[in-house]
Amino acid sequence: MTAYAAPLKDMQFVLNDVLQISKYSNLPGFSEASEDLVEAILEEGSKLAANVLHPINHSGDKEGCTRHEDGSVTTPKGFKEAYEIYKEGGWQGLSFDPEYGGQGLPYLIGVAVGEMVSAANMAFAMYPGLARGAAEAIYAHGSDEQKQKYLPNMISGEWGGTMNLTEPHCGTDLGLLKTKAVPQGDGSYKISGQKIFISAGEHDLTDNIIHLVLARIEGAPEGVKGISLFIVPKFRINEDGSLGERNGVSCGSIEEKMGIHANSTCVMNYDEATGWLLGEENKGLRAMFTMMNEARLGVGMQGLAISEVSYQNGAAYAKDRLQGRALTGPADPEKPADPIIVHPDVRRMLMDHRAFTEGARAWMYWSALYGDLVHKAEDDETRQKADDYMGLMTPILKAYLTDKGYAHATNAQQVLGGHGYIQEWGMEQFVRDARIAMIYEGANGIQALDLVGRKLPKDGGRAIMTFFAEIDEFVKDNEGNEELKPWLDGLSSAKADLTEATQWFMANAMQNPNNAGASSMDYLGLFALTCLAYAWAQMAKAALEKKESGDAFYKNKLITGKYFLDRILPEKTAHLAKVKSGSEAMMALDAEAF
Amino acid sequence: MTAYAAPLKDMQFVLNDVLQISKYSNLPGFSEASEDLVEAILEEGSKLAANVLHPINHSGDKEGCTRHEDGSVTTPKGFKEAYEIYKEGGWQGLSFDPEYGGQGLPYLIGVAVGEMVSAANMAFAMYPGLARGAAEAIYAHGSDEQKQKYLPNMISGEWGGTMNLTEPHCGTDLGLLKTKAVPQGDGSYKISGQKIFISAGEHDLTDNIIHLVLARIEGAPEGVKGISLFIVPKFRINEDGSLGERNGVSCGSIEEKMGIHANSTCVMNYDEATGWLLGEENKGLRAMFTMMNEARLGVGMQGLAISEVSYQNGAAYAKDRLQGRALTGPADPEKPADPIIVHPDVRRMLMDHRAFTEGARAWMYWSALYGDLVHKAEDDETRQKADDYMGLMTPILKAYLTDKGYAHATNAQQVLGGHGYIQEWGMEQFVRDARIAMIYEGANGIQALDLVGRKLPKDGGRAIMTFFAEIDEFVKDNEGNEELKPWLDGLSSAKADLTEATQWFMANAMQNPNNAGASSMDYLGLFALTCLAYAWAQMAKAALEKKESGDAFYKNKLITGKYFLDRILPEKTAHLAKVKSGSEAMMALDAEAF
Repeated sequence: MTAYAAPLKDMQFVLNDVLQISKYSNLPGFSEASEDLVEAILEEGSKLAANVLHPINHSGDKEGCTRHEDGSVTTPKGFKEAYEIYKEGGWQGLSFDPEYGGQGLPYLIGVAVGEMVSAANMAFAMYPGLARGAAEAIYAHGSDEQKQKYLPNMISGEWGGTMNLTEPHCGTDLGLLKTKAVPQGDGSYKISGQKIFISAGEHDLTDNIIHLVLARIEGAPEGVKGISLFIVPKFRINEDGSLGERNGVSCGSIEEKMGIHANSTCVMNYDEATGWLLGEENKGLRAMFTMMNEARLGVGMQGLAISEVSYQNGAAYAKDRLQGRALTGPADPEKPADPIIVHPDVRRMLMDHRAFTEGARAWMYWSALYGDLVHKAEDDETRQKADDYMGLMTPILKAYLTDKGYAHATNAQQVLGGHGYIQEWGMEQFVRDARIAMIYEGANGIQALDLVGRKLPKDGGRAIMTFFAEIDEFVKDNEGNEELKPWLDGLSSAKADLTEATQWFMANAMQNPNNAGASSMDYLGLFALTCLAYAWAQMAKAALEKKESGDAFYKNKLITGKYFLDRILPEKTAHLAKVKSGSEAMMALDAEAF
Repeated sequence: MTAYAAPLKDMQFVLNDVLQISKYSNLPGFSEASEDLVEAILEEGSKLAANVLHPINHSGDKEGCTRHEDGSVTTPKGFKEAYEIYKEGGWQGLSFDPEYGGQGLPYLIGVAVGEMVSAANMAFAMYPGLARGAAEAIYAHGSDEQKQKYLPNMISGEWGGTMNLTEPHCGTDLGLLKTKAVPQGDGSYKISGQKIFISAGEHDLTDNIIHLVLARIEGAPEGVKGISLFIVPKFRINEDGSLGERNGVSCGSIEEKMGIHANSTCVMNYDEATGWLLGEENKGLRAMFTMMNEARLGVGMQGLAISEVSYQNGAAYAKDRLQGRALTGPADPEKPADPIIVHPDVRRMLMDHRAFTEGARAWMYWSALYGDLVHKAEDDETRQKADDYMGLMTPILKAYLTDKGYAHATNAQQVLGGHGYIQEWGMEQFVRDARIAMIYEGANGIQALDLVGRKLPKDGGRAIMTFFAEIDEFVKDNEGNEELKPWLDGLSSAKADLTEATQWFMANAMQNPNNAGASSMDYLGLFALTCLAYAWAQMAKAALEKKESGDAFYKNKLITGKYFLDRILPEKTAHLAKVKSGSEAMMALDAEAF
C-alpha cells in the first residue's frame, strides 16, 4: 500500500531560501505569514494529507462514486468524514478574503497546501478545488449581494461548487454551446440544457452545491460573443439564508472513467433551473477566463503532486526490493541480493523524477508568488509584471507539469516491475489519476496554442521580454560565482535556444498560422525547460549558500540540480529542431489519408 | 466504440516492396509463401481480427476473468467461441513445423498475423501466444518423445501453455528462485512452490494446459546455475494420448490489474506436481533464453499493435469531431465547425503516431525476416548474421516499441479530449493494456542492460559492426538518388551519433560499469532511432520507385517519411548528450537520500 509524507523541507527551502517570502512581509497576507506560522500550517497540512486523505485514496478508487435512482450521488466510504475534518480545519478559506470568512493568507501558501492535498488524494482534492474556483469567480464578478449570499458558506466549506462548460458536442469550442437561458423579468433566468464532464457535479459532502453555468440568453449572438455565466444553486437560498426549494438541476448519470473514480464526473441536466447572471450579459467567457489562470495552475499542480507521491512510493520500493547485484560488486553481501536502488537504470528513473519534481515545485511556487503580487504588490510595475508572468506561465505550467506528472507516475510504476501493474500496490492508480490532468481545464494542445497564439504576442511580447531580462540580470548578478557556473551556463544556453525559437515564430508564424500551431507544443516544452533551468539555478544558488551548514539536504539538492543539467536539459535541442521544422510535412496529408 | 481494420496495404508494402520476400522463395516456407497466398492469409487474418476478436475486446476488459472456488477460471463472454474460431482456422500452427501439424509458413508471416491479433485484442492474443512460446521451447529442447507427446495438440490449439518464471521474491533475478523439484527415480520430478504473474495460467479455452516451470532440483547449486526447466501438464497424458489425472498444480488467485483484464494473470501453486525435465539439468535458464528472442519480439509487437489500433481510432475521431476552425480559415464553412483534423497540434499527435508505427512495422518485419533466416538461410554467413541481428535487435525492439506503443496510445487518447478518458470510448483501455508490455518479458530497463552488457560486446561487437556496414553500403548504393537524399542524410547522421555513443561506451563502460547502466536506456533510444531511420530510408526508396503509379499511398508514405526526419529523428541529439553525461550525478546520492 502507498504512503505519502509531504516534502516539508523541500517546500520550506523554496519558500524561505529561494523565494525568501519574508521579503514581502509588507504586503497584505504576507505580514501574517511568518516563517513559524507557515511552518505550523504546512505541518498541520501534512498531517491532514498523510493521516486523513491518503488512507482513503486507494479505497476511494476501488469503490468509486455511486449514483442512486433519485439522482443523488454517494462518495466512497470515508470521504464525508474526511471532508468534515477538512472543513473544520478551515482549509477551504486559507487564502480567501477575510471579509467573507477566509484567513487571508498568501495564495502561495494555499498552493503549497494544495500540493499536499492533491498528492494525498487527487479525487478528494477536486471537490473543494472546484468549489474554490466557483467562489473565486463569484468573488471576482459577483454583485455585493451575490457575494454576501454565496461566499461565506462556500469559503467555510459548507457548500460546494462547480463549473459547467462542456456540452456533448462542444468542449474546446465553447462558441457552439446550446444551453439556453430565458429571462423571467425578475432578474432570474430559466436555464435549460445538458452539460457533461462536470467534476463534483453531485455528491453528498455538502448541503448545497453552487453551479456556475455557461449558457446563451435567448436572442443572444451566436458564437462566443453570446455566452453568459449564471449562478445556479442546487437548492435555492431563502431570504434568511436557509436552504429553500430544490432547483431544476440534476445529475443524469456519472461517467465510468480511467481514473479519479472517487470524484463524481456528472452529466448535469438543467431543466428550467432558476439561475442568476454572474457578471455581464454575453461576457460569460471572459468571466470564466479571468479565473482560468488559477484553475489551470491548480491542474498543473496536480501533475506535480502526483509526481511527488509516485516518486516517494517508487523510491521506497527501490530501497526495499532485493534483486540482482550492483554492477560494481555486491553492495550488501550479507543479503541474498542488493536493493534495486543500486542499479543505475532504476536511479535514472528516480533521479529524472526528482530533478523534475523539485524544479517544478520551485517554478510553480515562484509563479504562485506572482499570483499574490498581481493583486497585492504596492507598485503598478510589479503588478503588471506579475500579471504578465501569470498569463505567460499558466499554459506552460498546466501542460508541461501534467504531461510530466503522468510520465513520471509511469516511471515510478516501472520501478515496481510487475507489482506496479497490480492494483493493490496502488502505483497504477497514480498513473490513471494523473492522466486526466493532461485533458481537462483545456487539453494540453490548447495550452500550447494559448501560449503561442495569445500569451506570446500579447502587448508586443512584453511578458517574455521581461522574463528574458530577468534571466539576463540573474546571470549577470551571479557572474563571479564559480560554483554556480554550470547552472548559469545551462540557463544561458536554454535561454539562447528559446530566443532562437521565439524568433522563428516571429518570422514564420505570421505568414502561415499553421507554423504556429505545428510548433506550439515543442515551443512550450523548450520554454518549460528554460523555466526549470532558471528554477534550478535559483535553487543551486540558495543551496550553495547553505552548503557549509553540513546538512546533506543542500549537497543533495546540488547533485539533483547537476543531474537536471546532465539529463533533462539536453531535451531542449530536440525541441528547438522540431520547432524549426515547421508545418509542411505535418499538414501535407489529405484529411482522408489519415 | 472502437474499430480495427488491419493495415493490409502497409503490411504488403513492407513484405513485397521493402523486404521483397519473393527473393527468398528458394528457402523452406518461403517457397509456398507466394504473394497471392500471403495476401489471402492476411486478408483472412484481418477478418478474424475485425469481426471475431476486436468486437470482444472492450467487453472482455469490462468483464475480466473470474476465478471460481475450485480454482477454475472462466474467460469473458465470447472468448471461448472466438478461440474455437481461431483454433479451427489453423492460426496457431501457421509458421510451425509441418512435422507436428503446423503449416510451415515463414515466421515473418506469423508475425504479421500476430500484429493483427494483438491489435484487435491483446488480452486474447496472449492465450495462444503463451502456448506458442511453450511449444517452441519444447520444440527446441524436448526429446523426440516429448515433442510427439505435446506438440501436435499445442500446435493445433487443443492445448494451451504457459511460462512459469516469477516468484513473489524474484522476477528479474531468477537466481533467487525457490521452487523445488524432487526426482522420483522414474524420470519424473515432484515440483513444489509458488509462481506469480503467470499469464494465461488457468482458463477455460483449452482442455489441457502445458506449464513450463523453472525450478531447482534438490541439491542443485545456488543461483542461476542450479535452475532447471520442467514440463508440468495440468492434466497428465495417458499412454494413448487421452487426458489422465489432474496434476498437483492449481490457480490460487488471479490478479486485479491495470489492464489486460481479459487475460488471467495467475498465482500458480505447485504442490508435488509431477513434472518432466525439459532439456538438460541445471540448464533451465539457457533453455528459456533460447526462445526469449521470439517472445520478446512478440511483446515489442504488442507495442506496435496497440499503437496501430489506437491510431486508427484517434484518427477516425479527428475526422469526425467538429470543433473550432482551421487556423488558416474555415475548412468547411457550411458546418458549424471544422473537424479537428485541421488543427496542426492534432495532426502532430497523429503524424507522430504514423511516423512511428509505419517505421516500427518495417523494422519489426525486417527483423522477423532474420528470425527466419537464422534457421533457413542456405549459407553459414547469412545464418550467423541473422543470429547476430536477432540478438542485437530484440532488446531494442522490445523496449522501444513498448515504450512508444504506450506513449502513442496516450496520444491517441488525447485526441479525443475528455471522451478519451471515459471507459465506453475504449481509448483508455488501449493505454492500460499497452502499459504491461513495458514491464513483462523483462522490464525495459533490463532490455537496455541486455543490449549494452551482452549484445553489444558479444563476439567483439560483430553484430553492430555488421549492421553499420550494411547501413554504409545502403547509403553508398543509393548515393546518386537525389530524391532519397534527405533520408540518406538522416540515416547517416543517426549512424554517426550512434557510432559516437558506441565509442563512448567502449571508452567509459569498462572502467566504470555504472556508466554502462546509466546510459543504457538512452543508448537504446538512439539505436532505435537509427533503426527507424534505416527503415524509413528503405521505405522511401521503395515508395519513390512506385511514385509514378499515381497511387496516393506512395506519396503519403513519403510525406510521413519526411515527417519522421523533421519531427522524430531530432530526438537522437538529446539521447547522445545524455549518454555522454555518464553516471556521476546519477549515482552520487546516498541510497537513504531517496
